[in-house]
Amino acid sequence: MNDTKTLRLMFPQWQGGGNPDYVLGARLLAWLAPPAAHHLEVEVPVSLPNMEELEIENGILARAALLRQLDAARDIIDQHRPDKMIVFGGDCLMDQAPFSYLSELYGDQLGVLWIDAHPDVATPDDRDRGHTMVLGNLLGYGDAEFAARVPSPLAPERVMFVGLGRLSPQEAAFIARHGIRTAAPDVLRAGAEPVTEWIQETGIRHLAIHLDLDVFDPELFGGVSFAKPGLDGDTRASMRSGSMSFEQIANILSDVSKETDVVGLGFAEHIPWDAINLQNLMAGIPIFRA
Amino acid sequence: MNDTKTLRLMFPQWQGGGNPDYVLGARLLAWLAPPAAHHLEVEVPVSLPNMEELEIENGILARAALLRQLDAARDIIDQHRPDKMIVFGGDCLMDQAPFSYLSELYGDQLGVLWIDAHPDVATPDDRDRGHTMVLGNLLGYGDAEFAARVPSPLAPERVMFVGLGRLSPQEAAFIARHGIRTAAPDVLRAGAEPVTEWIQETGIRHLAIHLDLDVFDPELFGGVSFAKPGLDGDTRASMRSGSMSFEQIANILSDVSKETDVVGLGFAEHIPWDAINLQNLMAGIPIFRA
Repeated sequence: MNDTKTLRLMFPQWQGGGNPDYVLGARLLAWLAPPAAHHLEVEVPVSLPNMEELEIENGILARAALLRQLDAARDIIDQHRPDKMIVFGGDCLMDQAPFSYLSELYGDQLGVLWIDAHPDVATPDDRDRGHTMVLGNLLGYGDAEFAARVPSPLAPERVMFVGLGRLSPQEAAFIARHGIRTAAPDVLRAGAEPVTEWIQETGIRHLAIHLDLDVFDPELFGGVSFAKPGLDGDTRASMRSGSMSFEQIANILSDVSKETDVVGLGFAEHIPWDAINLQNLMAGIPIFRA
Repeated sequence: MNDTKTLRLMFPQWQGGGNPDYVLGARLLAWLAPPAAHHLEVEVPVSLPNMEELEIENGILARAALLRQLDAARDIIDQHRPDKMIVFGGDCLMDQAPFSYLSELYGDQLGVLWIDAHPDVATPDDRDRGHTMVLGNLLGYGDAEFAARVPSPLAPERVMFVGLGRLSPQEAAFIARHGIRTAAPDVLRAGAEPVTEWIQETGIRHLAIHLDLDVFDPELFGGVSFAKPGLDGDTRASMRSGSMSFEQIANILSDVSKETDVVGLGFAEHIPWDAINLQNLMAGIPIFRA
């Protein structure tokens, strides 16, 4: 018998990225997932999508709603005290409560693999969207009010980035200052060794994985903001999008699952343009309302 | 009170196009649709996806399975005798039973708007996939065995094409021989007048609409076979893909809904690559099976 308790959190948070389309993205991820079987599934309550209501509050868009949702997620987690968690987001900030809980649960045996085109280590001085700050918060930096909700901050040596794209000066400086390990897409073409080496060298026994879907090459995956249909070439070129393939990511996830106990997996930043366009099209056709 | 009886048919047929990925496409369309409210929803039983089992049978891939599924769809329709039908496909052939039924029900007051990059008027002499023949069958041509299951064939003057791309010689000859009206994507940029004029001139009172999602420009919609991620440029250029926008199609659907009673609407050929890739990725990650 398997007595591991796994909690699936459906967390359709959208305010951290300021885009209501994250809601359908979260729901679609949960719908696509393998059947839950023994897993418990809980949805984190999220304020209804209404961009007009959102304001920058002390440097962060919709700060109060984001803090409220962070606390709601944590309450759900504390109620169930799972061993493992799968999170269907929602903007990247949705991984703060689950990863903070896992850090308390597993202490210095926990590693965090951040698979993302962006390091998410901004502060309100750099940006005004909460989803750009989540890993910073988890490390004890980012935004002070969010970081204060991480009782057991991650140690930088037990965090590793996979798939980062072009970095801003602030991001590059943060990563260098804290000596956080990175594996660029090119390095990973041959296999996941840089990641498994990090796991072995740092003695990581349990691993939480943040998978921002924007790490995929937008030519291979269309369900992220950077792959919005109809964007002009200049806008596209200005974006810091990902460059990885499904095969690469699948190999990494498979290899680290053999090397360590994967206790957290969050899917972030899904914006399923095709599904959104189909849903909008259908919503306007009278036969559906007959 | 509204006493119209609308049947939603979930028809995950995939053998007509020879691609098991149509199954998820059909399920996703049904999931994305506005809540059914008063509509009845029924799924047509379809043989499990196993491409290895399929063979060309008397000129058509999986002929026997397709005929069996056609009959199953018709049985469901006859059992409920709806006034209107919404169909979530599946390959294009899934619209044969619903449109054949509507033709019997509404006779010469029924028009059929075929929104598609391809006219679907092939015969087994031209092609071996059933989904290329469905409108031909409905007009009394196509494949003899399939056409024999259309007791009340459509009259060519009450059929109109929207969005056709480059035609094969056989397709062009068929359309010319039967004098079927067409409105090219360019003509429709200004509005849906060519379509509403056809409705008025032919006295159409009830309209069935076949919407093959490949009518969309693959740069604007990625959920069809032609938009498969990672296809090389030559393969892409050789394909006869669509060129229409969501706004154009929404306007046409809205305009014809004002002009006539839309009694049928089928969504065909959805292959949601992003969802398929995500689902395959998730299926391989051990945490989902813990």
